[in-house]
Amino acid sequence: MKYTFALIGIWLLSFSGLAQELISPNQDLKMKFSLDENGTPVYQLYYKNEEVIKPSKLGLELKDDDLSLMNSFKIVDTNTSTYDNTWEPVWGEQAEIRNHYNELAVTLNQPEKDRKIIIRFRMFNEGLGFRYEFPEQKNLVYFVIKEEHTQFAMTGDHTAFWIPGDYDSQEYDYTTSKLSEISSKFDGALSHNESQEQFSKTGVQTSLMMKTEDGLFINLHEAALKEYSLMNLNLNEKNFVFESWLTPDVLGNKGFLQAPNTSPWRTIMVSDDATDILASNMTLNLNEPNVIEDTSFIKPMKYVGVWWEMITGKSAWNYTDDLPSVKVGETDFTKAKPNGRHAANTEHVKEYIDFASEHGFDGVLVEGWNQGWEDWYGHSKDFVFDFVTPYPDFDVEEIHDYAASKNVKMIMHHETSGAIRNYERHMDSAYAFMNKYDYPAVKSGYVGNIIPRGEHHYGQWAINHFLYAVKKAADYKVMVNAHEAVRPTGLRRTYPNLIANESARGTEFQAFGGNKPNHVTILPFTRLIGGPMDYTPGIFEMDISKLNPDNNSHVNSTIANQLALYVTMYSPLQMAADLIENYKRFPDAFQFIKDVAIDWEESKYLEAEPGQYITVARKAKGTNNWFVGNVNGTTPRTTKIKLDFLEKGKKYTATIYADAEDAHYKTNPQAYKITTKTVTRRTKLKLDSAPGGGFAISIIEKK
Amino acid sequence: MKYTFALIGIWLLSFSGLAQELISPNQDLKMKFSLDENGTPVYQLYYKNEEVIKPSKLGLELKDDDLSLMNSFKIVDTNTSTYDNTWEPVWGEQAEIRNHYNELAVTLNQPEKDRKIIIRFRMFNEGLGFRYEFPEQKNLVYFVIKEEHTQFAMTGDHTAFWIPGDYDSQEYDYTTSKLSEISSKFDGALSHNESQEQFSKTGVQTSLMMKTEDGLFINLHEAALKEYSLMNLNLNEKNFVFESWLTPDVLGNKGFLQAPNTSPWRTIMVSDDATDILASNMTLNLNEPNVIEDTSFIKPMKYVGVWWEMITGKSAWNYTDDLPSVKVGETDFTKAKPNGRHAANTEHVKEYIDFASEHGFDGVLVEGWNQGWEDWYGHSKDFVFDFVTPYPDFDVEEIHDYAASKNVKMIMHHETSGAIRNYERHMDSAYAFMNKYDYPAVKSGYVGNIIPRGEHHYGQWAINHFLYAVKKAADYKVMVNAHEAVRPTGLRRTYPNLIANESARGTEFQAFGGNKPNHVTILPFTRLIGGPMDYTPGIFEMDISKLNPDNNSHVNSTIANQLALYVTMYSPLQMAADLIENYKRFPDAFQFIKDVAIDWEESKYLEAEPGQYITVARKAKGTNNWFVGNVNGTTPRTTKIKLDFLEKGKKYTATIYADAEDAHYKTNPQAYKITTKTVTRRTKLKLDSAPGGGFAISIIEKK
Repeated sequence: MKYTFALIGIWLLSFSGLAQELISPNQDLKMKFSLDENGTPVYQLYYKNEEVIKPSKLGLELKDDDLSLMNSFKIVDTNTSTYDNTWEPVWGEQAEIRNHYNELAVTLNQPEKDRKIIIRFRMFNEGLGFRYEFPEQKNLVYFVIKEEHTQFAMTGDHTAFWIPGDYDSQEYDYTTSKLSEISSKFDGALSHNESQEQFSKTGVQTSLMMKTEDGLFINLHEAALKEYSLMNLNLNEKNFVFESWLTPDVLGNKGFLQAPNTSPWRTIMVSDDATDILASNMTLNLNEPNVIEDTSFIKPMKYVGVWWEMITGKSAWNYTDDLPSVKVGETDFTKAKPNGRHAANTEHVKEYIDFASEHGFDGVLVEGWNQGWEDWYGHSKDFVFDFVTPYPDFDVEEIHDYAASKNVKMIMHHETSGAIRNYERHMDSAYAFMNKYDYPAVKSGYVGNIIPRGEHHYGQWAINHFLYAVKKAADYKVMVNAHEAVRPTGLRRTYPNLIANESARGTEFQAFGGNKPNHVTILPFTRLIGGPMDYTPGIFEMDISKLNPDNNSHVNSTIANQLALYVTMYSPLQMAADLIENYKRFPDAFQFIKDVAIDWEESKYLEAEPGQYITVARKAKGTNNWFVGNVNGTTPRTTKIKLDFLEKGKKYTATIYADAEDAHYKTNPQAYKITTKTVTRRTKLKLDSAPGGGFAISIIEKK
Repeated sequence: MKYTFALIGIWLLSFSGLAQELISPNQDLKMKFSLDENGTPVYQLYYKNEEVIKPSKLGLELKDDDLSLMNSFKIVDTNTSTYDNTWEPVWGEQAEIRNHYNELAVTLNQPEKDRKIIIRFRMFNEGLGFRYEFPEQKNLVYFVIKEEHTQFAMTGDHTAFWIPGDYDSQEYDYTTSKLSEISSKFDGALSHNESQEQFSKTGVQTSLMMKTEDGLFINLHEAALKEYSLMNLNLNEKNFVFESWLTPDVLGNKGFLQAPNTSPWRTIMVSDDATDILASNMTLNLNEPNVIEDTSFIKPMKYVGVWWEMITGKSAWNYTDDLPSVKVGETDFTKAKPNGRHAANTEHVKEYIDFASEHGFDGVLVEGWNQGWEDWYGHSKDFVFDFVTPYPDFDVEEIHDYAASKNVKMIMHHETSGAIRNYERHMDSAYAFMNKYDYPAVKSGYVGNIIPRGEHHYGQWAINHFLYAVKKAADYKVMVNAHEAVRPTGLRRTYPNLIANESARGTEFQAFGGNKPNHVTILPFTRLIGGPMDYTPGIFEMDISKLNPDNNSHVNSTIANQLALYVTMYSPLQMAADLIENYKRFPDAFQFIKDVAIDWEESKYLEAEPGQYITVARKAKGTNNWFVGNVNGTTPRTTKIKLDFLEKGKKYTATIYADAEDAHYKTNPQAYKITTKTVTRRTKLKLDSAPGGGFAISIIEKK
């Protein structure tokens, strides 16, 4: 990895009264910072000279502190600099990432307490990041955050793409509404989850995507969330001011800090072009560089697995139905009556290994392989799994040998049931077990309430754990794909073995009643801002009752839309989630899943409108091949795209996987058509997408 | 280890009405069990035909359960048996322990819920133990205890030797009062601790020692506390009924259980001779047999250490005073200014190694050797220590080599500051570090509030951890001496590497203002019922200001009393806690500490009266030598003892370390006299003990 540093200590401030200004490298964005009459820090943001963030206060309320870090500040120092550097991620949407910003660091002092903080602003072309810093000092050492009061004052009643603020779950469908409608639509935006707790009817999660009446796109999120609790936003519906709302611990505290330390970055992206939000690397750039020296074990993977059949209810995770409860290490499963529905058995897993091998997949995920699934959730059970003991019908050794003979890697599954202590106690032996049997990656899960009881998925305690698990995995050269963990905030830059997260409503909900058809036109603007998602696309059979007569759920998507997701939902870890039998029914469509790359040289965000459509083109790393994906919302739509990103003078074979004319996510989801043509950089395409549809194109260089 | 089982299925019940009776092997104790008109279990206890426990209810209140396990029971089965077996502890007060009891197991059903529990009673000669059992069944699997309602109904206003009930601390002086006086004396019985929380002005801790007006001694405690929260007792002062009061978790829950499972045993010891309470092995016998296969690493130890000088304030644990806070692994201590008071430095430790080697001590404990002591408590600091990184002036390698050359073992110290998660995360590497540098034992500490925050030292979470630490230590062949952990309940039988605990007000408080002079005449009846205590006796300089001019504390004990503690306060781990310089001033008295054994063939409890005196004789394992100790309360007293426990026909040299005539714990604590005489089993001794005094005798066989 190569870093080029360009730290230039030039002054970018222009003094207008007492306010200090910070301007983006491209001059589009301007931030004004000042202290108000109470000594409270206030910032304001302009985009192309129009106000996008009205004067907004900054500060932290401390526990057992009469003054807090809210007011009575004096500016004691300001420092500006410019940074311009290009770095290479281990994997990603592009091979090189430019990190270019102007910085303003304001040192503030509270004379009354003789203590100081720094507020550091970094202005990128597409947005502003800022954080609180607590330098080493005598009078601010250990402190407890009662609440962070960071404001984001909106200029009007914008349209927002939001999910309910929650301490434990992000697995909600998005609601599109005016800010003023959030509270009235709040209850309707809720859906059940095994662990969830909302805090306010005007509470929403980040990354929050908004659009102004003037067509400006605004995105609020955070970057580099470590040793701090997650930020939700609470809206004052009267003046459209959002304020940070941190996740509490069991006692209501919102963060234990020891100086020197910092808060995560708070980010505001702004553009009049929605694709700028998708293309932004601001969140990554606000994270620290990679700290893992040997990254040779970190490799993007395409995989299949024993999973969708359990999600749909066709098969079971558990081995027996006959025991009221089990204790791993005590229950003798060889004496238990098998329920006959246990999918993670050696024979069945071998079928998946064969399929993966035949079709060029890197890995096979198997859930339900280890003892404990009989009573794995809903009981606040502490010692629920040991992560190393298989059911009698899952032969770890035999499966390992078979997979190795077929050049396929097994992917580990660690469901923790939220029992963090138990997982940490078994983590070393669990990772060592993975090393022994050559599992390169683990899908971890945190279904249900967290143990220690009363802690939340997004509180400081759990957030500390999630990163601990990633760091320890790195020690064992293991990649982590954490489900039900805190949403990503770009930490993958620092820890590139964090290859994916769930942290949103994924494909599984298509078997639990369905997702909104435009869900995937919003996720890249919200959930994916922080990092890749293990969305598990690739469902070809939309009528779930065909898998399980007791499940009438419908997958609200066309097959073409499912294919497009491999391009629009960037992830270095991509599953082909459906059953083998369903892929065998549609081998021509399946070809795209086989062909599509998972690591990229370059990405072009061709067009996008949150909630309506996204069209992305990506160039496969180390090749001249491109893959294009379009996902569409509920309105039929025609996309016109130019292939001017192709290399001059070269010819390509484009295979277009599009919705058939009569396709529809609900009524006719399996109607697709595949066409092939020769294309060049001068080619223009006009393609129709059905409601809940889209298209996928592979563009392979002719040699 | 050899076990002989004698399970005889004979019926011991005599039916008087519906009540069922259980009688002790020696017929002294009789228990009656019945269900009352509400179907609530009730028991009653008689000693020599006098009622000692009036009808007392049994039951558990469950969370979110309308019926609970309180009433509406029917007896569906009763089962009796007799057990008589002798087993050999790895270490202890005697080489063989007889486990002899009659048992009654009553299976109760709640027809309304179709669920059952078993109440199992075991009647020993000196007391009753009983527990709740939750067998495997369909309708009682996972449940949360809201409160256990086990009653102990006293027959009158007994005298109690009590400390305030508390969820986090047992480090109190004992108050002797009538039961009716507890609430009025409660506030006066409190003293400060870094972590403490009382729950009721009539709340007291177990083991609770009482004496009736008729001279009967009653002791209430528990045995085999695992995966459950600790029991305190709350008194109804109107009717003298004690009821169990479990330690809550942060949310107020008192226990998460999964059937099959059991509660700990609740124990009631009764005798008209106080020495029977001291001699009882009931608590041990109610625990499961040893589960550690290779016990060769478990060896009693006598040790000195770098400790008292910090406790008294003469020296410091921390290396520097110049930093507002430190972060282990980040703070560079080689650049910090030493405070010059750091006791755990290589040179000083070598002095202790020399001293230990010269005087035949097995080990040297060093506290403050590892980085992190600058801000180790009071900050709710999570990552406070890593347990492997020494300060710059403590050379682990050099100290290891030096100790090995002198045939002395270093004893490890792991202060956790109550940060359980942090300790568990570092436990493997910490124990591996001990293995590498040949530390056979660890003194662990849990000063301050527990992290996870809001959990208590004696709640189920922490109790699970304490045992986890002991089990993991066994994996590494490490012995554990846990301070500020939950009080012992005989678990050392099952895990004999748990060689000691603190769990009471130890010698350290003699440097924090002093203990009551009769403290050590109560501890063997209370704290030591559950297991040995690392009391750290052997203080020769009672005026602490001689060590530290800023500390005016006085050690309320004579030197003879200090010597006696090595016999009266049984522990396989015994410290000589004072400074080397103080031992050098009194080499003749120090000789007893050098001579006294720490593992015993046999123990004779010659006389005892809680709060007043205890006289014990113990025979050193594998020898014919005996050691006698007497500790005395505040009244001068003359003890007459017969040495009829000595072997017939043998002669012994007795060295008697007694209070001088004018000795007094306060005014003249260092006045002792040493006499030597030849004794046989016909010898009678008459010895005077001063207030806060006592005597110690070594009786060495003449060969």
